[in-house]
Amino acid sequence: MAVRIDLNISLDGFATTTDSTPENPFGLDWGRLVEAYTATRTFRERVLHDTSGAGTTGVDDKYGAAYFEGIGAEIMGAGMFGLHNFPDDPEWRGWWGDEPPFHVPVFVLTHKPRPAITVADTTFTFIDAGPEAALERAHQAAGGGDVRIGGGPTTAGAFLKAGLVDRLHVAITPILLGRGIRLWDELRGLENDYTVTSETAESGIIHVAFSR
Amino acid sequence: MAVRIDLNISLDGFATTTDSTPENPFGLDWGRLVEAYTATRTFRERVLHDTSGAGTTGVDDKYGAAYFEGIGAEIMGAGMFGLHNFPDDPEWRGWWGDEPPFHVPVFVLTHKPRPAITVADTTFTFIDAGPEAALERAHQAAGGGDVRIGGGPTTAGAFLKAGLVDRLHVAITPILLGRGIRLWDELRGLENDYTVTSETAESGIIHVAFSR
Repeated sequence: MAVRIDLNISLDGFATTTDSTPENPFGLDWGRLVEAYTATRTFRERVLHDTSGAGTTGVDDKYGAAYFEGIGAEIMGAGMFGLHNFPDDPEWRGWWGDEPPFHVPVFVLTHKPRPAITVADTTFTFIDAGPEAALERAHQAAGGGDVRIGGGPTTAGAFLKAGLVDRLHVAITPILLGRGIRLWDELRGLENDYTVTSETAESGIIHVAFSR
Repeated sequence: MAVRIDLNISLDGFATTTDSTPENPFGLDWGRLVEAYTATRTFRERVLHDTSGAGTTGVDDKYGAAYFEGIGAEIMGAGMFGLHNFPDDPEWRGWWGDEPPFHVPVFVLTHKPRPAITVADTTFTFIDAGPEAALERAHQAAGGGDVRIGGGPTTAGAFLKAGLVDRLHVAITPILLGRGIRLWDELRGLENDYTVTSETAESGIIHVAFSR
């Protein structure tokens, strides 16, 4: 029943990138930010449905596999679902294609709720709710599993500031993006409520975990 | 003849702290930021003159020892020398007591130069110069050794932006300070000019090095 967050951030703390275009909605920076994660066997299996066994199996993959374990529901911000990029498209179904990698109920926080949609085995429910109320909905739907706050950083920060998060894992890519939305703003002293561990992967990615 | 920077920063990128008082000019946050470094054997020997052999000897100490190796001169900003804290005290001789740990010529960048002072075997020379000119002075004084840009982050950033730095090592303490001066501002893409390595110490400190 823990509440968990996993995010990829740059060395300068940015969890979003700024070079998206209509043709390339993630942008080049996003590819650089998540390059080590998307190279893992877990990502290839769980997100790309590549069952060949290809992909890295080191420290990055350990965190990648843990990301999917025990999750019963997910909460994400409107931006992560793409509602800021495609606000006027009522048919928008997210970035994840016909087989979203969630496989659990997903709650999308938005001030303009729309009817729920189901894509493969994932149902996206749009709710106008603050962190506590959203978490109550998600816990009810999670069947005893953990709830993940998927992102983006503004949504993650709201849950962290509210003291609602049991485990925060950041995978820090040692690149400097210089712009975007920082995860760490207004979180002075967060470490006081957690045990903090750090570990470096073969790829150079730095994994830092705040656990309580 | 390399130009080197070593800095302690928080997980949110701050290289200065904000809770200094006249009674405690470093503040509590500074102690937390450099706790693992000040616990090393190298720091105890080189800065505290403790020859008992006490102190940690792991990864943090490896970087601590490298910090002192091969340096022929140092450049620091006015703030690091304390000129912002004690602007009206012509007798101010820095924070380092009667035996400063530098043992090489130190050039202090300031728009209000004052006469040079010598404390034990360290001479502090105050110069009004930009990064390139300061580096020329320091190289001349370094006797073939490396030049260290001691800090603070504004000074370090100026040398990094000017492309003058061969090696940047940051020791990241996994605490969130939330305020101060960030090292990483305006350094987007810095990694493109360097090989970047990361390593985690027993203490939880994350050492990231940019080398070229």
